[in-house]
Amino acid sequence: MKPAKQRRDKVVLDTSLFVNPEVRNDFGDTPTGAIKGFLSIAQQIPQLEFYMPSSIFRELLNFVNEKEIPGALLAILHQKSPNKHEMTCPAFFLYELIEDIRERVNKGLRISEKAVRNAGKGDEREVIQNMRKNYRDALREGIIDSKEDVDLILLAKELDGLLVTVDHGAIKWAEKLGIRWLLPSKFKEYLESFIEKKE
Amino acid sequence: MKPAKQRRDKVVLDTSLFVNPEVRNDFGDTPTGAIKGFLSIAQQIPQLEFYMPSSIFRELLNFVNEKEIPGALLAILHQKSPNKHEMTCPAFFLYELIEDIRERVNKGLRISEKAVRNAGKGDEREVIQNMRKNYRDALREGIIDSKEDVDLILLAKELDGLLVTVDHGAIKWAEKLGIRWLLPSKFKEYLESFIEKKE
Repeated sequence: MKPAKQRRDKVVLDTSLFVNPEVRNDFGDTPTGAIKGFLSIAQQIPQLEFYMPSSIFRELLNFVNEKEIPGALLAILHQKSPNKHEMTCPAFFLYELIEDIRERVNKGLRISEKAVRNAGKGDEREVIQNMRKNYRDALREGIIDSKEDVDLILLAKELDGLLVTVDHGAIKWAEKLGIRWLLPSKFKEYLESFIEKKE
Repeated sequence: MKPAKQRRDKVVLDTSLFVNPEVRNDFGDTPTGAIKGFLSIAQQIPQLEFYMPSSIFRELLNFVNEKEIPGALLAILHQKSPNKHEMTCPAFFLYELIEDIRERVNKGLRISEKAVRNAGKGDEREVIQNMRKNYRDALREGIIDSKEDVDLILLAKELDGLLVTVDHGAIKWAEKLGIRWLLPSKFKEYLESFIEKKE
């Protein structure tokens, strides 16, 4: 009896892996260099299939020199959107999202009120800049706040894949949906462990 | 052959029906009066089953004199939460919600910036009051922004019921989910049409 063909594990990648300097450096000095560095390792790992949502891939193209991207990347890193018109999410997800947003919206208003009260006391531009930062932190940090974030977690869910991202919002909601995830800072070592096993 | 027993249509009610003065007046002068008014009509309509999410019913109790609520209400107006741990919602719903919120969050920041710029020019308290109003309009109007809202649309979905509410957010998202809805201003006439038919 032949052994059953082993199912290849799927890995879903965010742009941060190639763009964010803190995690990118494992693979290369520039976004384009990081893609090439990833590619040279990924090609040696037939056990893994790599995916990126199409929307995230388009974001990535803003950071790289498209002409320098090797065609082989597209054979290794598959672009795929989640099947958003057939997929569903649990209703409790909706409750938690709405409650989370409600608290953030209230917090945003308190930040704005504080800024108005400080407006007379200091430099107006500085007050506005501080408010913008605090407001964005309160309303965007740790929450899924874009179509691209939703693509990322739904694709990982659909493929039952391993999500690799630094986005705290995506990680938090991935955990609610039972999605496995890995911090990009450990991603290179993770990949290399497959190459060592093969040898 | 006996005729198949006719399925009773289900109606899901929001508190606004009994609390909001603009629509409540069809049934009574006070919230308690409106409940009694509704009850006396609803008792004559065996073709309809009435439901209210438990969370919404608890809200309603804040507006009425609990001692004056007839016990018969609980036999006519069933309290039921949606089956939130088994229900799902389509993934596209998540995309539209996140996009909607993202635009609102940006608008909220622009409102706050404008208020900071106006802070020096007028009465601080007035500037803050205006900002609060504009901010709440921008971030809450026309969106589902509470657990109670989610309960309302999910219960209507679960029961395949007719939703009766004035909440624009609930109506907007009910439409996305294919839920039937009715404005409370027509609800009394709607009920009376059943009584006329019977006669």
